[in-house]
Amino acid sequence: MRILVTNDDGIHARGLVLVAQSLRTLGDVMVIAPESQQSAVGHGITLHKPLRLDPVDLGPDIEAYSTNGTPADCVILGTLGDLPCPDIVVSGINAGANLGEEVLYSGTVSAALEAALHDVPGIAISVCAYEDVIYDAAVELAPRVVETLLGNPLGCGTIVNVNVPNVPPSEIGGMEMTRLGRRKYDDIVIRREDPRGRPYYWFSGGPTEADRAPGTDIHAIMQNRISLTLVHFDLTSQQRWEGFEALAAAQPPKTGPAPA
Amino acid sequence: MRILVTNDDGIHARGLVLVAQSLRTLGDVMVIAPESQQSAVGHGITLHKPLRLDPVDLGPDIEAYSTNGTPADCVILGTLGDLPCPDIVVSGINAGANLGEEVLYSGTVSAALEAALHDVPGIAISVCAYEDVIYDAAVELAPRVVETLLGNPLGCGTIVNVNVPNVPPSEIGGMEMTRLGRRKYDDIVIRREDPRGRPYYWFSGGPTEADRAPGTDIHAIMQNRISLTLVHFDLTSQQRWEGFEALAAAQPPKTGPAPA
Repeated sequence: MRILVTNDDGIHARGLVLVAQSLRTLGDVMVIAPESQQSAVGHGITLHKPLRLDPVDLGPDIEAYSTNGTPADCVILGTLGDLPCPDIVVSGINAGANLGEEVLYSGTVSAALEAALHDVPGIAISVCAYEDVIYDAAVELAPRVVETLLGNPLGCGTIVNVNVPNVPPSEIGGMEMTRLGRRKYDDIVIRREDPRGRPYYWFSGGPTEADRAPGTDIHAIMQNRISLTLVHFDLTSQQRWEGFEALAAAQPPKTGPAPA
Repeated sequence: MRILVTNDDGIHARGLVLVAQSLRTLGDVMVIAPESQQSAVGHGITLHKPLRLDPVDLGPDIEAYSTNGTPADCVILGTLGDLPCPDIVVSGINAGANLGEEVLYSGTVSAALEAALHDVPGIAISVCAYEDVIYDAAVELAPRVVETLLGNPLGCGTIVNVNVPNVPPSEIGGMEMTRLGRRKYDDIVIRREDPRGRPYYWFSGGPTEADRAPGTDIHAIMQNRISLTLVHFDLTSQQRWEGFEALAAAQPPKTGPAPA
């Protein structure tokens, strides 16, 4: 089995090396990761500049490269280039939660979704802390999620988003399938002035967790439980929009085929 | 009414200026747009560097700023900073389609989704061509979509993604509500060598449109019809995963609260 490991924290992140080592028991591990921190890059891909792929030494039996691209770029390089296509892509282990609609911004989750776009199974794994991260439970879990996913494939375009509470394994209270909650941010834009008097802005603020009801990923983590959420890339809303008929009626086609 | 206009093609894109002018009939228009081309940045936001907001002259009655951030950053700056919060965000008019799962990569769509994350109605508008773009129909449509959306609000977290075929208005065959199709890419990674013999890589390839059945946005555009798709940010898949029980059973909580 060939496993491609990537992340958005960069090639030298501890969570990346730990998960790559833990997956070596399952097959050949190749790492392609950004050369630097890429958090919150979302699902960017690089169209307007060339990418590098530089060999990196991450220890024995791990073929590893860093690139100047995004996490999604890493997956494209690893699945469509001249390297052998992986059987599965594992993105992580991220230092920091990827819960609720944060997955939209998440380079970690986007890398797994990019795999799904190329019909390769994808897993994103995060531990819910930025500092003093306890990787043990996530490292132990990763190979089991890989084996389970390959034995029980998901439908086209769906990935597993795993979030692990930042506690020792003995304090983890089980795991559950969840839906994405909502982490509204009480964002603020902080204005400062540079030494020449010109303004600049920083984003700040934290999540307020607007939807943390039982059944959400946020709730699971609050209970010290591991959260597994199936995430897909079909963003079509099933809602109906009453306004549409009025809008369409106001613009009859001027010529051309009649509307269906 | 206050309308925030942004895009991912950059502050000097023709589609941005045209839509800003067309929306002036409805209220106060403020433009905040990236200082340069940001296509395919996805839903990135900027956490690790400060952002600038530089006044730009886009003609009379349009307050306009460029920033060194992403399209989603523009919306955060416009909704959460010291500027008055807009009633609606219009992203576009993009030169280039945003169809199918391409919306994941799209800075244009991400800006509208960022508005929805802050409970501000959002519209993304694109014309389906990169060159020789015919903006007329999109420019005429934009104020009508804004008025219709404000009169018929969508639920929390849902935006309107509008794609307009690149033909003169007289050749447009109506409009329809659609779902996102699928534009699988026959991507290839092209390897070249720099003058020092080191390899570098370009992404290339085009869409193969794996799902262009009637009812999809891709089908509508192929029929020269305007496509309106409701897009939301809840990426939870409703699929069941048979593997989960086996996975959960193999990891009973070692201590701590019993699983629910």
